[in-house]
Amino acid sequence: MNILVLGGDGYLGWPTALHLSALGHRVTVADNLVRREYDREMGVDSLVPIASIEDRVLKWEQVSGHVVDVRVGNLTDATFTYNIVAETQPDAIVHFGEQRSAPYSMIDREHAVYTQVNNVVGTLNLMYAIAEINPDIHLVKLGTMGEYGYPNIDIEEGFIEITHKGRTDVLPYPKQPGSFYHLSKVHDSANIMFACRVWGLRSTDLNQGIVYGQSTPESDLDPVLATRFDYDAVFGTVLNRFCVQAVTGHPLTVYGAGGQTRGMLNIRDTLACVTLAIENPADQGEFRVFNQFTESFSVMQMAELVQRVSPTPVDIAEGLANPRVEHEEHYFHAANTKLLDLGLQPHLLTEDVVAGMLELVERHRDRVDLNAIAPTVQWRKSASTLKTASEVPDASFLVV
Amino acid sequence: MNILVLGGDGYLGWPTALHLSALGHRVTVADNLVRREYDREMGVDSLVPIASIEDRVLKWEQVSGHVVDVRVGNLTDATFTYNIVAETQPDAIVHFGEQRSAPYSMIDREHAVYTQVNNVVGTLNLMYAIAEINPDIHLVKLGTMGEYGYPNIDIEEGFIEITHKGRTDVLPYPKQPGSFYHLSKVHDSANIMFACRVWGLRSTDLNQGIVYGQSTPESDLDPVLATRFDYDAVFGTVLNRFCVQAVTGHPLTVYGAGGQTRGMLNIRDTLACVTLAIENPADQGEFRVFNQFTESFSVMQMAELVQRVSPTPVDIAEGLANPRVEHEEHYFHAANTKLLDLGLQPHLLTEDVVAGMLELVERHRDRVDLNAIAPTVQWRKSASTLKTASEVPDASFLVV
Repeated sequence: MNILVLGGDGYLGWPTALHLSALGHRVTVADNLVRREYDREMGVDSLVPIASIEDRVLKWEQVSGHVVDVRVGNLTDATFTYNIVAETQPDAIVHFGEQRSAPYSMIDREHAVYTQVNNVVGTLNLMYAIAEINPDIHLVKLGTMGEYGYPNIDIEEGFIEITHKGRTDVLPYPKQPGSFYHLSKVHDSANIMFACRVWGLRSTDLNQGIVYGQSTPESDLDPVLATRFDYDAVFGTVLNRFCVQAVTGHPLTVYGAGGQTRGMLNIRDTLACVTLAIENPADQGEFRVFNQFTESFSVMQMAELVQRVSPTPVDIAEGLANPRVEHEEHYFHAANTKLLDLGLQPHLLTEDVVAGMLELVERHRDRVDLNAIAPTVQWRKSASTLKTASEVPDASFLVV
Repeated sequence: MNILVLGGDGYLGWPTALHLSALGHRVTVADNLVRREYDREMGVDSLVPIASIEDRVLKWEQVSGHVVDVRVGNLTDATFTYNIVAETQPDAIVHFGEQRSAPYSMIDREHAVYTQVNNVVGTLNLMYAIAEINPDIHLVKLGTMGEYGYPNIDIEEGFIEITHKGRTDVLPYPKQPGSFYHLSKVHDSANIMFACRVWGLRSTDLNQGIVYGQSTPESDLDPVLATRFDYDAVFGTVLNRFCVQAVTGHPLTVYGAGGQTRGMLNIRDTLACVTLAIENPADQGEFRVFNQFTESFSVMQMAELVQRVSPTPVDIAEGLANPRVEHEEHYFHAANTKLLDLGLQPHLLTEDVVAGMLELVERHRDRVDLNAIAPTVQWRKSASTLKTASEVPDASFLVV
């Protein structure tokens, strides 16, 4: 198949592109490389060194014999978006090409507006390009489990049957997103659902949990092919943070009660899920939602797991102020059967997996910047001062 | 009270500003006057002549002795938005300041993106301005009943109690908006609900039905104070179209089966509802939703009502192609008790009211442009050619 991977220079876009290429698909990556600019703006870096996109694709061709084409541009530029769709004639488009950090979207007004315009307009342009160039293209869009929020009932996959005052209908599952980033994903989902209805587009919305891990069969072939490992307060995720704290001998920082429970999945399962969605496309006019996670853990359970696996003794710092506004103890039971029904074989979060993550951190511990870990963005404030703000070389991409 | 009316030059914003001014509130109108530019872009005009904003406020001061202050600017310009909030120090902000036509948002990609960016970013800027200048300000936001779509269960006011697999929660009512415009209102509602939760803002979302009528106690005082009467295919509403067709001896055009049922209200009730919301503000941190309509009618019922009241014989043209993608026969039962509980006394759609509308059209029949009525925008197409497109003098406001 011909596959266009949007955001193909990012944490998940890059290894997904490699995986699809390894399977023999013809892959084109499109990216505006802004993820690298966010690092410069925040004054942080991936724990694992990241090669340039040029070096990445060159190395991939050397080790695999497969060519991945690269287009650099911005999806909010409609001409760019139409051109890549028209020129690559994809069967499927995998859309990772969005600003994906909740704290980044909560920095201040400028970052909130940037996140929503960047994500929503990029996706609108893409929908129009598909409708006008080839409505048969399958749009595989990355959403987030955070679209649902944390209701006191079971979370279903996109839709729920509601019986109310003696009548019944199947309706979009109510959404309670917890940041301007999560809201942008909800806006996207609503826009795409509508486009499927009026224009007959076909789309799969992958409401993904929190991804952990950095090792995939293809990216492990050479250090130049490695993907990111983010542990900073803005783009990092909690399990990565705990691993970095454990290796460097710092207490694991649990914010709030630690009962915040999240759906999680291994990076290898992200690749498998996207592949399953592509190989089993939505019907024409269908908007379907898959909940893309394999297990759920509370923040405290993750801390205890890292503590248990760490070869050196580790403390857990409890009761720290929570920078987010969120339920710290809540019901969480979410359906995730649709991808399993398509054949997903989960890689679970075993002690071996955590041990592997700790070893990865150990290998790169000279690159750890502990100053990057403390929370800077406060949900309750409409503007947070970043300690790295004065180091911003150029954030002109923020102007919308 | 000190009240800021955003979009105060438009169909409803202007008479609302007058009404609040007549009640003794200190009113400031902010508007970028773009509604007048849409007319020029579409090559249409209000049936009733509309005075300049300068003449409007001058006349109002002459006839009432009340001063309405005017600020011309764009809510997507954060500096403008922060300045008007800081300088006017309002107790309440009534937010009509959005692109409000579904067909306009469905013209093509450019108009869809314009509508969503204009509406969502304007409201984001406003939320941030309130949070940073005075979170005590009550935001009264105009939404639409169209946010709900047409589910097969009763529509509640913003939230619904759902019992699912033995557990119960009260969740945001599922939304099924039917155009990129309606989607923009859904995005706004989600963003504002979130801001109330994390920053403690107070807001009332008025999910308004279709407003009819052009006569209010204040705007009737002088022709210079008149508000709009739109009957064209893009900004007009169905009852206005039927009145114009009846007066000019053309069959009433019912698109599709005519069973499309909508919540409706008299323009005088819009003024009363907004006033009730302002006088009974939401609590700090509260996001509340009122369904703002008084009756519901199907399109065919409206056609038959106009046919019955018209002094001259009128035909109904049935079975015309529907430019929209919508259910043409559907269940519709929506709650609307919250504003009644606050004391709303509805003005119903009587035969006398329709007779008054027909008389209004008769007085201005020399201004009717029958070419403006036929549908131009097709929901099933991603781009519609407007016959007036070549007449566009300047639509630079579309560039976002």
